[in-house]
Amino acid sequence: MLDHNAAAARIFTAALIVIGDEILSGRTHDKNIAQVATWLQVQGIRLKEVRVVADEEPAIVEAVNTLRARNDYLFTTGGIGPTHDDITVDAIAAALGVGVEVHPAARAILEDYYATRGGLTEARLRMARVPAGADLIPNRFTGAPGIRWGNIYIMAGVPSITAGMLEALTGTLEGGAPLLSETIGCWVGESEVADLLRQTEKTHEGCQIGSYPFWREGRTGANFVIRSVDPDRLAACCAALAAGLTAGGRTPVAGGL
Amino acid sequence: MLDHNAAAARIFTAALIVIGDEILSGRTHDKNIAQVATWLQVQGIRLKEVRVVADEEPAIVEAVNTLRARNDYLFTTGGIGPTHDDITVDAIAAALGVGVEVHPAARAILEDYYATRGGLTEARLRMARVPAGADLIPNRFTGAPGIRWGNIYIMAGVPSITAGMLEALTGTLEGGAPLLSETIGCWVGESEVADLLRQTEKTHEGCQIGSYPFWREGRTGANFVIRSVDPDRLAACCAALAAGLTAGGRTPVAGGL
Repeated sequence: MLDHNAAAARIFTAALIVIGDEILSGRTHDKNIAQVATWLQVQGIRLKEVRVVADEEPAIVEAVNTLRARNDYLFTTGGIGPTHDDITVDAIAAALGVGVEVHPAARAILEDYYATRGGLTEARLRMARVPAGADLIPNRFTGAPGIRWGNIYIMAGVPSITAGMLEALTGTLEGGAPLLSETIGCWVGESEVADLLRQTEKTHEGCQIGSYPFWREGRTGANFVIRSVDPDRLAACCAALAAGLTAGGRTPVAGGL
Repeated sequence: MLDHNAAAARIFTAALIVIGDEILSGRTHDKNIAQVATWLQVQGIRLKEVRVVADEEPAIVEAVNTLRARNDYLFTTGGIGPTHDDITVDAIAAALGVGVEVHPAARAILEDYYATRGGLTEARLRMARVPAGADLIPNRFTGAPGIRWGNIYIMAGVPSITAGMLEALTGTLEGGAPLLSETIGCWVGESEVADLLRQTEKTHEGCQIGSYPFWREGRTGANFVIRSVDPDRLAACCAALAAGLTAGGRTPVAGGL
């Protein structure tokens, strides 16, 4: 029981680097931040920071070395395809100070995958290159695997392939107690209940309340998201906030608006 | 003419900090990265890096001080509302080493806006607080203005309000020659034309080619995005790539697939 509590108290953190000029140019709308964030929540790992960087080695090296040092896990998406603009593996190897090698199992996977698709060309063989000492992350969609090196998880940029790699990793990373959350919606301007929100958070240790306003159907509303690792504290904080809204003549909507 | 060329040659860069636990938790799908990226392209400013950070002062301070120093412009979204979790102004003031003050014009705007909406409460007055010495960015939707301090542009997190602030800033920032781009699509696996892409980029100085694969309707395809600040070089590179695809028995599709 003590061990369980100790494990629950340890917070595991992750960072994500989205690598790709196409995101920074606005051409492609990123879908991997939300996807990785949601997946990490389920694993009991907190996403602390995301960086979107260009397809440039110095930018990747800086982000990798900063973020891998201060998080339990570092994920990257993008830049592991067969073309000249896919430089993630080389950049991460440079960040780690290791060489790049062809991973035998990755090569075998690609040989098999491309056996009926024109064969393993030099360009395709690029997708078997890994920072020396890496393991593979399975990709059941298009063969070319993701890569794990230490606490770094190197994944594809195409969201459906990223999803498959996350699925392959599900349950394999040590996490802590998941951060639980409940949402209470209300047709109210958030500024009208700012004091209530602040007081409720202050009097409920271990809980955070986020306020997310919206304008819809010509009306002003907000969703209040209450977060805690402790289900009892979370429930108490939610109840207090709902009671406070009701006392002020408002109608709290469990689950949010 | 010389002056014009010198101005065109200067590259203006920007960074963006998206501030908000709701993005890192996966609850909210960010829309501001793509919106700001697209807007910056039109202004002739290159978005070099994006960071998504939590509603935590140390994280905001670190990102602000790193990114404002190495870019011409720094934009932030999120955390400037009336509630306790809106800490962007205080965090940026801390990063700058200046105090926080109520901006008289912001106060006047809010007094006017809330005159028919219940009056300017203490919570609402929070939205008039700025790092000392700041100017305002108009918000024609909900009163509460954005903030400019030096090269930092502090904007709202709600995408429709961010859009209004960007609109207000349109044409006011000095930019360089916009990075032009053309897209050529092709029903081909990118690995089959990797050599062509690499060679075409190599022989066309001042042009970059990005390769973005997709799987659609049971087929493999890719879009090749060619970028350059020089329209003539861009056209030449596009023509060469299209000719190369055609020579290889492929059908290039101008504008992309």
